[in-house]
Amino acid sequence: MAQGIIENLITQLMKLPGIGRKTAQRLAFFILNMSEEDAKAIAKAINNTKERARFCCQCFNITDAEICEICRDEQRDRKKICVVEEPSNILVVERTGSFDGLYHVLMGAISPIDGFTPDRLRITELLQRVKDNGATEVILATNPNTKGEMTAQYIRELLKSFNVKVTRIAYGLPMGGDIEFADEVTLSKAIEGRREL
Amino acid sequence: MAQGIIENLITQLMKLPGIGRKTAQRLAFFILNMSEEDAKAIAKAINNTKERARFCCQCFNITDAEICEICRDEQRDRKKICVVEEPSNILVVERTGSFDGLYHVLMGAISPIDGFTPDRLRITELLQRVKDNGATEVILATNPNTKGEMTAQYIRELLKSFNVKVTRIAYGLPMGGDIEFADEVTLSKAIEGRREL
Repeated sequence: MAQGIIENLITQLMKLPGIGRKTAQRLAFFILNMSEEDAKAIAKAINNTKERARFCCQCFNITDAEICEICRDEQRDRKKICVVEEPSNILVVERTGSFDGLYHVLMGAISPIDGFTPDRLRITELLQRVKDNGATEVILATNPNTKGEMTAQYIRELLKSFNVKVTRIAYGLPMGGDIEFADEVTLSKAIEGRREL
Repeated sequence: MAQGIIENLITQLMKLPGIGRKTAQRLAFFILNMSEEDAKAIAKAINNTKERARFCCQCFNITDAEICEICRDEQRDRKKICVVEEPSNILVVERTGSFDGLYHVLMGAISPIDGFTPDRLRITELLQRVKDNGATEVILATNPNTKGEMTAQYIRELLKSFNVKVTRIAYGLPMGGDIEFADEVTLSKAIEGRREL
């Protein structure tokens, strides 16, 4: 190969999702021109992720410790549990700054076709936590699609025997969007979920 | 920070061009789920690039040796030199498989506004190589834009005193394109450069 090192970097970067040859090439030459410190920080972050990342034994968030920082944080309301499908969803909710409780990652959603039956999700652990923490509210923040809905309904049923409020995140129009472009289902959900001003 | 390791990886990935928070997040969680071997290969490729990449002392291509593989390759026609602006351009030309000569990287293009005067480019080295190699053809493959054109014209002038054929890569319609969508300049260049069939 003519340009061994760069060609290797390009091949490696192409393993990432959404990165084709052209993008990989652009990234590779950008990395080549970066300061050594900056470039090595990227490599180190990748290595660290693989070497140190593990799941929190309580909520299944990603962490480098036994228990994640959110679960360890004494300031957070331990009586509210927000249920999400994937660890990455926690990041999204955290960035809103509108939730101060704990999380629970299901590690997927119910999808019988894909062989994802409820027993493969961290539902037993969720029920245990609801009991142990004496939770007052469980917010179901699974995805607003068929699998997420099914999962939310399933958990909703299981929690009926617990003395806990179960809520589902709201459906509606995305902010900054245009009513013109809203699909009918979303729009009808938005009307259904209208609130008094 | 809630998710130190992942958050750090996201921050690091966001340093790359065209990678915003959302893409970085997607990549980070993808890396998290990759095999350790695959992920580390990416990190290693980045480190290698920074540690071992240097410029070929003859053509200024990127290499990990004193002289790059293309310049070392005895099979290549040393009498043809293809002049490009950046090392990344070599990769593009190489992939066409339609050139078997050597390259010469200028390390930029003439652009007086940006302070890129001809003396900052590897032009002296090019002239020396043309002389030393007894080159028969110099192909100017600088970009088809103002800077690239200016650079090509400049080098063309300098090479007039040498006994060497100087060519410029062809302008025309991109393959697979539609004549309908061609801009006027390209189309007029395509007509101007028409060839007998």
